[in-house]
Amino acid sequence: MSVARIAVVGGDGIGTEVTAQARKVIDAVLPGVDYNEYDLGARLYHRTGEVLPQPVQDELAGHDAILLGAIGDPSVPPGILERGLLLRLRFDFDQYVNLRPSKLWPGTTSPLSGVKAGEIDMVVVREGTEGLYVGAGGVLHKNTPAEIATEESLNTRHGVERVIRDAFARAQRRDRRHVTLVHKTNVLAHAGNLWSRAFAAVAAEFPEVTTEYQHIDAASMFMVSNPQRFDVVVTDNLFGDILTDIAAAVTGGIGMAASGSVNPERKYPSTFEPVHGSAPDIAGKGIADPAAAILSAALLLEHLGKLDEARRVTEAVAAEVASRAPGAPLRTAEVGDRVASAL
Amino acid sequence: MSVARIAVVGGDGIGTEVTAQARKVIDAVLPGVDYNEYDLGARLYHRTGEVLPQPVQDELAGHDAILLGAIGDPSVPPGILERGLLLRLRFDFDQYVNLRPSKLWPGTTSPLSGVKAGEIDMVVVREGTEGLYVGAGGVLHKNTPAEIATEESLNTRHGVERVIRDAFARAQRRDRRHVTLVHKTNVLAHAGNLWSRAFAAVAAEFPEVTTEYQHIDAASMFMVSNPQRFDVVVTDNLFGDILTDIAAAVTGGIGMAASGSVNPERKYPSTFEPVHGSAPDIAGKGIADPAAAILSAALLLEHLGKLDEARRVTEAVAAEVASRAPGAPLRTAEVGDRVASAL
Ligand SMILES: CC(C)[C@H](C(=O)O)[C@@H](O)C(=O)O
Ligand SMILES: CC(C)[C@H](C(=O)O)[C@@H](O)C(=O)O
Repeated sequence: MSVARIAVVGGDGIGTEVTAQARKVIDAVLPGVDYNEYDLGARLYHRTGEVLPQPVQDELAGHDAILLGAIGDPSVPPGILERGLLLRLRFDFDQYVNLRPSKLWPGTTSPLSGVKAGEIDMVVVREGTEGLYVGAGGVLHKNTPAEIATEESLNTRHGVERVIRDAFARAQRRDRRHVTLVHKTNVLAHAGNLWSRAFAAVAAEFPEVTTEYQHIDAASMFMVSNPQRFDVVVTDNLFGDILTDIAAAVTGGIGMAASGSVNPERKYPSTFEPVHGSAPDIAGKGIADPAAAILSAALLLEHLGKLDEARRVTEAVAAEVASRAPGAPLRTAEVGDRVASAL
Repeated sequence: MSVARIAVVGGDGIGTEVTAQARKVIDAVLPGVDYNEYDLGARLYHRTGEVLPQPVQDELAGHDAILLGAIGDPSVPPGILERGLLLRLRFDFDQYVNLRPSKLWPGTTSPLSGVKAGEIDMVVVREGTEGLYVGAGGVLHKNTPAEIATEESLNTRHGVERVIRDAFARAQRRDRRHVTLVHKTNVLAHAGNLWSRAFAAVAAEFPEVTTEYQHIDAASMFMVSNPQRFDVVVTDNLFGDILTDIAAAVTGGIGMAASGSVNPERKYPSTFEPVHGSAPDIAGKGIADPAAAILSAALLLEHLGKLDEARRVTEAVAAEVASRAPGAPLRTAEVGDRVASAL
């Protein structure tokens, strides 16, 4: 029997190049994994018009986790691959915890002056299956002066409470044990009130965790003026999308930004992918940095309960990045080899 | 006959202190303005339970503009004053252009390393009367496991097109003549499509203005990694709320952040106010920096067609700020006096 079944969706552009390195590194710490590669993304879409055929989705469902590279190509109209693949996996596989750690690693530089490696260390727990991402909305009187377009944010007690509980459980395991709720309760009064009440209820279950509330606009500002203040942040789908990109920016860009779209109960497979895109401009050249993909593999290992393996991979990537000479050219495969052989 | 009728709503905390300086400066460049002071904010709310009594609103409607200090106090539940006063003025007075310039002034320091004064100079034109701010939504099955809360974003062709046209007209008058549309078209497909089509249609009317589109998450990242790239940004109500706070953060915080909630047709009065809050911790001490309030007064003058006066006030504030010794204590009234006497 294999130790784990992992579906690999390299995807577009540099996606396949970086997942190859992530596989290499997983093999170095956890031999015996079964991989199945799926060719999804722009190529499949152009060939068949399909993004995620039902039989493929059914096969994916039989895996323990999905390792994803990057999806997206300028040749495909925006939204099609994102909604048809990434969001469909999040919704159909109930990946309600969208996990985005941000750390300022030694060897990386923050654009913020005076912020030193180690000082920023947070994880944003973004809701992944509700909010404005549900696609509820429509258009009336299109292309007339009377046109109206709507988007509806749907928030359930069920969906909000479970992601908040996940955030508190993570905070409980961290040094600072602090959770910040980010919303816009002064304007989005209905959803804000639900989030606030659910937050207060869950907080009562975790007396050792300290809490704080910030409006999304203030939180975005603090991400720049004082990102050190954040430990665990929990927020809705759209606010999380924005906040995690600011968090990535202040920790030196998306080069080290890993993410997981997680179904914590493991009823469905979770997806792990670097935050960066398919970078068509450098695709095929073997010069993409696989660090974020390998760190995403570490999140995958952690999700499968391989805590020690996950920690070792993360440390090996950190060491590799810290050892880089500033501005030196980088070969994708060599980075993967160095990290794998250090393990 | 007076040259202009300005309603002054000092509001809470440091609000009254900073608007007093803004009045002083307006008087120095434009003698003969008629002022009426209105005591709105936490005090009125506690005394009467009202936030904006209808007779007061009717009186405000008779003014050319409203100079506002700050609204908000910890003693009032969040949302009440914001929705009852600030948002009510924006909606009832059809202030659909929410104007937020961000500039890195000499004498101020960006938290971004290597970014020098003068390099960041943008204006965000945020829609002010639609989107998720309309308050459409509700709660079902409150306090049960079946609870659901919704928020609806409403976007009309009418509302979207007029604010985009305003943004292009502003860009046309600027050196770089560039407009960036920010939205999330890959996820918010209905509203995103309306915004994109309206943007393309208006762009065709301004052949000299170059354009660009960015998703809100990418734009938030660029605000940190490369804010220099922005000239005019046009976006919806909520994205604008977030982006302008990031823009303020990268230009050294809200100390110099001015704003206008503008009805360009001047059918209703427009509101001008600093982005900062009421700062209860330093209220009454005479140490609040009135720079943002005075810069807001400059936006007010510009709105009234007093372009030369507006420019002179802006330059005088810039000179005052540039002349400050780093870390030196500051007296609110002295800053106002210095700016006024320089004019
Ligand atoms: C590609 C897009 C649909 C996606 C999102 O908005 O969630 C991306 O920005 C992300 O953060 O994973
Ligand atoms: C106070 C609040 C309602 C307001 C907003 O969200 O618009 C504020 O954040 C602003 O930016 O003017």
